[in-house]
Amino acid sequence: MTRQSDRVSGWELIDDEECRRAAAIVERVGRRWNSGILLAVARGAHRFTEIVARVDGLSDRMAAARLKELEQIGLIDRIVEPTTPVSVRYRLTERGRDLLASLQPLAAYGQRWEKGPEAHQPGRRS
Amino acid sequence: MTRQSDRVSGWELIDDEECRRAAAIVERVGRRWNSGILLAVARGAHRFTEIVARVDGLSDRMAAARLKELEQIGLIDRIVEPTTPVSVRYRLTERGRDLLASLQPLAAYGQRWEKGPEAHQPGRRS
Repeated sequence: MTRQSDRVSGWELIDDEECRRAAAIVERVGRRWNSGILLAVARGAHRFTEIVARVDGLSDRMAAARLKELEQIGLIDRIVEPTTPVSVRYRLTERGRDLLASLQPLAAYGQRWEKGPEAHQPGRRS
Repeated sequence: MTRQSDRVSGWELIDDEECRRAAAIVERVGRRWNSGILLAVARGAHRFTEIVARVDGLSDRMAAARLKELEQIGLIDRIVEPTTPVSVRYRLTERGRDLLASLQPLAAYGQRWEKGPEAHQPGRRS
């Protein structure tokens, strides 16, 4: 029997399949650099160089690989503009925008727990 | 200027520091196995063997490593019960419960996008 103190609003009511799906989404978005890139695009970085500049530590090589991956899984559109020379912009798909909207409560969670007097000081961060 | 179609509710209004923090949280929770383990515990698996049984593909070795990590970052409590022999249970901390509550909108996102006629069929999943 689940004790009151262990209950987490919502998740007990969801079936195993939905739970596995949610865990897979977290792993995919949580893959190193992906969430930073998605947030940079959401916040107005559309050119490759803007995205790289916005995400601390992101190399050109990783940015290219991750943008391709995010495009393949349908979260980002790569738009080639017919200028001379051609230029490329990235933007969130409808699905990508919905994903980021769904992740929005994490910002408030971060505020509650990752600063202020009660914040944990983890021994290491990965 | 950000175009209407690129706007994502909430994230434009958050400062860079909060954004970095949220991205770091997603990466930490999204690290392979972590979200599966947290959800298993949230859904009533408290013994080590129950947790391993609940998460597809999770080995004993990885479960031990990840549970230690999740304990270090303050998301899970490891409780040693003074039975003979001693037994160990895991449960979410208040912070862990808050994190899972904050991730709850992902379940609905998963339902909207990861099944049904409009679901993408990504070329590969990592």
